[in-house]
Formats: sequence, structure tokens, C-alpha cells
Amino acid sequence: MTAKLLMATRNKGKELELRSLLAGLPLEIMTLNDWPDLPEAMEDQPTFLGNATQKALLGAQQTGLITLADDSGLEVAALGGLPGVRSARFAGEERNDRRNNMKLLSLLKDIPLSQRTAQFVCVAVIATPDGKIYSAEGRCTGIIVSEFQGKGGFGYDPIFYVPGLHKTFAQLDLEEKNRISHRGQALREAVTIIRTRLSHGC
Amino acid sequence: MTAKLLMATRNKGKELELRSLLAGLPLEIMTLNDWPDLPEAMEDQPTFLGNATQKALLGAQQTGLITLADDSGLEVAALGGLPGVRSARFAGEERNDRRNNMKLLSLLKDIPLSQRTAQFVCVAVIATPDGKIYSAEGRCTGIIVSEFQGKGGFGYDPIFYVPGLHKTFAQLDLEEKNRISHRGQALREAVTIIRTRLSHGC
Repeated sequence: MTAKLLMATRNKGKELELRSLLAGLPLEIMTLNDWPDLPEAMEDQPTFLGNATQKALLGAQQTGLITLADDSGLEVAALGGLPGVRSARFAGEERNDRRNNMKLLSLLKDIPLSQRTAQFVCVAVIATPDGKIYSAEGRCTGIIVSEFQGKGGFGYDPIFYVPGLHKTFAQLDLEEKNRISHRGQALREAVTIIRTRLSHGC
Repeated sequence: MTAKLLMATRNKGKELELRSLLAGLPLEIMTLNDWPDLPEAMEDQPTFLGNATQKALLGAQQTGLITLADDSGLEVAALGGLPGVRSARFAGEERNDRRNNMKLLSLLKDIPLSQRTAQFVCVAVIATPDGKIYSAEGRCTGIIVSEFQGKGGFGYDPIFYVPGLHKTFAQLDLEEKNRISHRGQALREAVTIIRTRLSHGC
């Protein structure tokens, strides 16, 4: 019998990424789309860890499956870590990438490039049905540039420039992005935890 | 009126350390010794983060106060991260530093010094009464040596050698140890979170 793992998301892109990372493991990946009626976690926590923990524990409790959840965002040093957990809704409750980017650039307009360092952060949490938690984290450092560059990715990717690659996140292909991104790092670490510590219990 | 913060411990040493880090802030520190009858958290989680979160959330829920808890231990690379969350009870349920050290050295007896790297890890979690969580982490890298050196500290300190200082943790005075230790780092970061994000809510 194949064991099951819940990824606490309804996002198809996240699901595909996880499936590729878990390829070869005897695990059947479920998502919240397999339970259309489940209420979702609030995501009202002040930290990525808080939101990911909330989502993972709720999913594990609701379904009885080992559950993986993640939360991520952009932290700009010159803004004391903003937009942080507010990244997706920085310019208003309705998620709008373009407006979020414009708001960020407007806040940074008097700040020189040398002081525009930022990091993308992703925290993944794995929860078991009896309330045990494991966490993994990934970070990727870059600079917020004023010109939009590239058509890939989403969110702040077009203005998040990685000096070592001479490209923004939006100029990377998906494979290249996953290799260095905060989310790729966190998910790979989460997969290691699942393989080494949880695969018998799934 | 002075605000109150609960440190979810009955350990006097931890209390003193936190008091010195919070000196000057308008915060009254309480500990579980102020509530002698409260049941304690189980500490049966597989991770430091899990244990610290469990303790902090339970304390905040029981007392209605913003609560700080920590969990820490030693991870030896050659042993796949053991003793980890089992650090305090590695050689048996009754906590015994000497026996824990002897068990660790016996497991490492065929491993050359160059492969005996280890890290002390501390995770601190701050929880609010409405279930929000913040976390902070500290790490300190060293080498597990076979001869006990120094009389200070506790736990694995006499065999945890810090190459940069040419001393074991047990050979450091408390101030010197707090400056570099995993616990000092995590608590300083936790104090920053309390000062910048929570002091109005305490």
C-alpha cells in the first residue's frame, strides 16, 4: 500500500513542484483540492513559521495524514523586514502582484541600490496527526531593482535581482530558480525529513 | 503598570540569564515557579522547535501572558544528529550528565577527532495568549573531545571544545559563554522580538 502525504495547499504550482521533488518515493501526494469542503487556516500569524505551523497542524488534524505546509515572503532590510508575512497582500487584501511591486518600489525610491538588500524566506512545516512538528527553512539573498526584468515567476520576482547570476528571479527558468530559491531549499530539506524520519509513519 | 512576561521554566539558572538580558525593559518576569500547580508540557516532540512551541503555547494559554520557552541540545554530525532532543536523557530517563557524556564518548570512540564536529542548538519560541508564535534560534559549533576539561557549565559542556577559543564550554566563565552560546544567541534574538514587536502587547 502506498502511504499518503497531504500538502496543505490548493495551489497547483506548489503541488507540481513538490511532486517533482518527491518523485521516486512511495508516497501518494494529496492536496486540499482532494477535500474541497475543508475550512482553510487563517494565515493571521505574525511569522512565516506561525502560518506554516498553523496550516500543517490543521491539515493533519482534519485529514489524519502527515501534512506539509509552507509560507514564504520577501524581507527588505531597509524596511525593517517588510513586506514579510504581508508579501502577498502588501498593497491591499486582494492579491495583486503589480500593485505590490509598485508599493515596494515607492517605499524604496530614495534608498540607493547598495542599501536595497532583501531576502526571500520560505518556512516549511511538517505536522503529524498527533501534533508533532518538524520545520525547514530556505533563504535567498538579492537586491530590489527599480526596473522590472523578466517574465517568469510571480510576486516580487521581476524586481528581485540575484547578483551572482546577473538576473532577476523572473529571468530564471523554473529548474534554475528551484535550485537556488528559498522555496526549493526549504522543500528539499522538508523532503529529507520525510524520507529519513517519517516515511515509515506515513 | 509594568507588563508581565512568563518564562515557561522552573529552572533558576535560565531565569537569571533571562533577567540579565531583559534588564532595563519595563517587564516583570514570571516563571512557572509562580504557578506551582500548573501541569507542565510533555516535551515529547521530535524537534527543539516542537518542544519550545508546545511549552510556550501551553504557558500562554494557562496564564494569559506572553510566554517565552526554549529547548536545546547537542547534535553530533557523525551520529546523524544524536543526541538531539534526547540530550538531557540520552543515557536514561533520569537526567545524569556524567552518564550522558560517557555514552556519547563510547559511541564516538572509533571516530577520529576531525570527524567529531557537533553543534549546540537552542530554539526559543514566544507565544501570545491568542496563539501567535515567534521563534529564534542559536547555534554554536565545536568538537567533541575525549578528555573532560573544565568545571563550569553543565551537560556536555566539559567535552564540547570550541576551536576558536581553545577551550571547552566548561572552561568559559558565564559571561563569555553567554556571548557565544546557542542559548545566548537565541535569547538575545528573542529579546529583540519582544522589544520591537511585542512590548506594547505585554
